[in-house]
Amino acid sequence: MKIKKAVITAAARGERLYPVADTVQKAMLPVIDTDGLYKPVLQIIAEEAFLSGIEEICVVCAPGDEQRYTEAFQSLHTNLLQSYKGIDWAKEEAEKIDHLLSRLHFAEQKEPLGYGHAVHCAKGFVNNEPFLLLLGDYLYVSNMPGKRCAQQLIDLAVQENCSVSAVNPTVEHLIGKYGTLTGKHISNVPGVYLVEKLIEKPSLSIAELELQTPGLRIGYYLCFFGMHVLTPLIFQILEKNMPHSNGNLTLTASLQELSRQDKYLAQEVKGSRYDISKKFGLLQAQIALGLAGQAHNQTLTTIVETLAEANTRAIK
Amino acid sequence: MKIKKAVITAAARGERLYPVADTVQKAMLPVIDTDGLYKPVLQIIAEEAFLSGIEEICVVCAPGDEQRYTEAFQSLHTNLLQSYKGIDWAKEEAEKIDHLLSRLHFAEQKEPLGYGHAVHCAKGFVNNEPFLLLLGDYLYVSNMPGKRCAQQLIDLAVQENCSVSAVNPTVEHLIGKYGTLTGKHISNVPGVYLVEKLIEKPSLSIAELELQTPGLRIGYYLCFFGMHVLTPLIFQILEKNMPHSNGNLTLTASLQELSRQDKYLAQEVKGSRYDISKKFGLLQAQIALGLAGQAHNQTLTTIVETLAEANTRAIK
Repeated sequence: MKIKKAVITAAARGERLYPVADTVQKAMLPVIDTDGLYKPVLQIIAEEAFLSGIEEICVVCAPGDEQRYTEAFQSLHTNLLQSYKGIDWAKEEAEKIDHLLSRLHFAEQKEPLGYGHAVHCAKGFVNNEPFLLLLGDYLYVSNMPGKRCAQQLIDLAVQENCSVSAVNPTVEHLIGKYGTLTGKHISNVPGVYLVEKLIEKPSLSIAELELQTPGLRIGYYLCFFGMHVLTPLIFQILEKNMPHSNGNLTLTASLQELSRQDKYLAQEVKGSRYDISKKFGLLQAQIALGLAGQAHNQTLTTIVETLAEANTRAIK
Repeated sequence: MKIKKAVITAAARGERLYPVADTVQKAMLPVIDTDGLYKPVLQIIAEEAFLSGIEEICVVCAPGDEQRYTEAFQSLHTNLLQSYKGIDWAKEEAEKIDHLLSRLHFAEQKEPLGYGHAVHCAKGFVNNEPFLLLLGDYLYVSNMPGKRCAQQLIDLAVQENCSVSAVNPTVEHLIGKYGTLTGKHISNVPGVYLVEKLIEKPSLSIAELELQTPGLRIGYYLCFFGMHVLTPLIFQILEKNMPHSNGNLTLTASLQELSRQDKYLAQEVKGSRYDISKKFGLLQAQIALGLAGQAHNQTLTTIVETLAEANTRAIK
């Protein structure tokens, strides 16, 4: 099993977002990456995939967005070569954008029928291969030096030759926001589970009854971390569950079925996830990515100086 | 003298910016304002003006940007009313956007001939009245409770019936980035100077000879803070200095002439300025605005939690 393709879902508009996010392309918001360079969010996600062995990427987007993304990256490419002419890092960045554009495909989600439906839009691109699934508004920082979160997931999927979802032990008052699962701990690998039961955004009372996982801290549950490696079997299941209209096809329900039909694992990925769509999410992501990389000192200095200045103001 | 009009210059592209800023409209980047709500940068600047008594605003923009700004605000308006239907704050926000759109004018800067040239593009809008001049990439936090930075400047301009530039005592190694000036301290008002000499981005050796201002801390100079109230005389002076083509018309040179022809003051405004165009500027602005307002606790919690998490990672 080789994982060469990634799907990034970026079609959601308005949903779950602060309203202003609709006025700019959220995936093109600038964030300083761990290498110390400003990049659009989508490029940071794509590089997570490329640095984990992915060769081709498909962005599932809202109708008309393909052109907006492509033009934005082309404009960035031009700007790097013109405004920063002769500067080494700008040339390298422009080459990375070239590489990205040549590996970037798009699939339109014509109607907002849920996350499962968005994933299904990439079926043609995936073309019967296993694939990495990422979200267009989650940024990751790995806790394993030199090994991205996506790479950790792909390594396990290749080794075990099956679908794997990244999970994160999550405190009970937050599980109502996430797909939550439980399974049997696989004895020889720490943090890896054979998935048995999944519920999308469970209530706490249901979770207590059905989703407890032995070995986790009290009050913690395994919640989706926003990253999966899936085999193409998922598309058959999604098709069977597809709503006719106005429905909301979650991925979680189809993953529940996947767990019945095939070997399907969950892995506690070592790292942190930052959701740029939630309030203060962009601030949090910028601080985390800044601190985790080459811009560490500059990020810390910016924070401390701005805090000190605000404190002076408060004291006056 | 009444100040009812504001000009916001937002035409610069690429200039002085990290390259990625060109891929989204910088002025539409989302920032959480002091009232705790996400807004586009341009709206935050416009509200600084409205809350200081301004009634009409002209944005000097690059060709074609008028439509992009207008559409972005209309889309935000629609999103507020649709996705947040029945929610009070969303309705209030939508009304604010309505107000903004009905007060928003545009002037195109067809060629990038400098900041002075950009200001001159708003001549038709200003129509022989005094006006407040703001930059499209500076955000302000006032140190005077209930009194915005722009209000402080307008109050002095009205009282003294003349042009006033906001200035900030700036440490000598930074003055090469700013218009720098010196003048006679006006004895009855602290922090107010009659402007005598201005130099755009001076070298330190020139500043030492020509721009020292008695009464400031050693090694500090009065630098522009990015905010002015100007009388329409400035347009005559700008016209006289206008380059024929490919030139770069600074505002500073024309302000030097203004100081010879008319009473022209500089005021140390009580507050801080955040330049979202510089590296880490957006992070800094978000922290400062967050801490200065209703989102203080949430901002501080976000910072502290993210710092703690990054520290855990570093220790591992």
